[in-house]
Amino acid sequence: MSGYKYEEVTIKTEPVFKGKVISLQVEHVKLPNGETATREVVKHPGAVAVLAIHDNKMIVVEQYRKALGRSQVEIPAGKLEPGEDQTEAAKRELEEETGYSCGEVRLISSFYTSPGFADEILHLYVADTLTAGTAKPDEDEFLDCEAITLDTAKQYIKEGRISDAKTIAAVYAWQLHLLTGSYTL
Amino acid sequence: MSGYKYEEVTIKTEPVFKGKVISLQVEHVKLPNGETATREVVKHPGAVAVLAIHDNKMIVVEQYRKALGRSQVEIPAGKLEPGEDQTEAAKRELEEETGYSCGEVRLISSFYTSPGFADEILHLYVADTLTAGTAKPDEDEFLDCEAITLDTAKQYIKEGRISDAKTIAAVYAWQLHLLTGSYTL
Repeated sequence: MSGYKYEEVTIKTEPVFKGKVISLQVEHVKLPNGETATREVVKHPGAVAVLAIHDNKMIVVEQYRKALGRSQVEIPAGKLEPGEDQTEAAKRELEEETGYSCGEVRLISSFYTSPGFADEILHLYVADTLTAGTAKPDEDEFLDCEAITLDTAKQYIKEGRISDAKTIAAVYAWQLHLLTGSYTL
Repeated sequence: MSGYKYEEVTIKTEPVFKGKVISLQVEHVKLPNGETATREVVKHPGAVAVLAIHDNKMIVVEQYRKALGRSQVEIPAGKLEPGEDQTEAAKRELEEETGYSCGEVRLISSFYTSPGFADEILHLYVADTLTAGTAKPDEDEFLDCEAITLDTAKQYIKEGRISDAKTIAAVYAWQLHLLTGSYTL
């Protein structure tokens, strides 16, 4: 017991799948009212993403997303390697996917993407002192890099070309920064 | 072929799991360079969430999230029932979880929560003409409802009590509305 109100105490954990990226288990739990239920839980190593701003434009990558069956424009992102420092991972993903290197990244927000069924946490950074270079994507990663204005980002959101949680949060943060000087809430 | 650049064409779909909320399959794909790879894909029915504002306060619910092993403060949300209208689902979840009913909800944004491994799409609505009532949560759902100011929401984010993508996006949208009159980017 961790002491949380309404805690659901695990009676049994049933491992279902262990993959390259995620694993899946079914938790048999005791509910606060004494009844039992099952909870399907996806385990994920966590991820980093970077709102990278250069000359008042946001650096984005377009890539095919198998889970969605279509291409998406997103900010550079990737999953954490075991034991990897989060800020180093953010710099690494930015440079691998876009070629841009940066002196420092600053954390805007860390959030769970799908708390109803997954433990994935995403650490969203901002980088605004960038140096252009050559992208070095993973061998099974194919993407195009583009630098877009805020108006283009809003247009892409309207068209559905940008439609993932981290990129939408990043564009909100960018808009807030332009209005108030702060990326964070 | 759908014609997307860098499309990953499915060679074989391997069903792994079919649960109450999610299912999981492994897609064996052909990459743009002719090599093969596997993609782990979680299927989800989609979800709705509501930024509900009453007397300049946001209505939130605190509940235990088994996937995270802790309690979270979030905006009211829930998954879509098969064939259910999204705006009706948003009104239903708001009323079930908080007791507040609303005349209308307006879409702020629809976004994929975890495009790297899941097809879950979340439709984020705003409701700002509310009538208080009595909550009627599902029988395996236990939660507490609270109305919080923007300053309290920001404090909860700092403390990690609010730390999920949809609620953070909702607070950004609320802040943007207070600054510009618009919830949408």
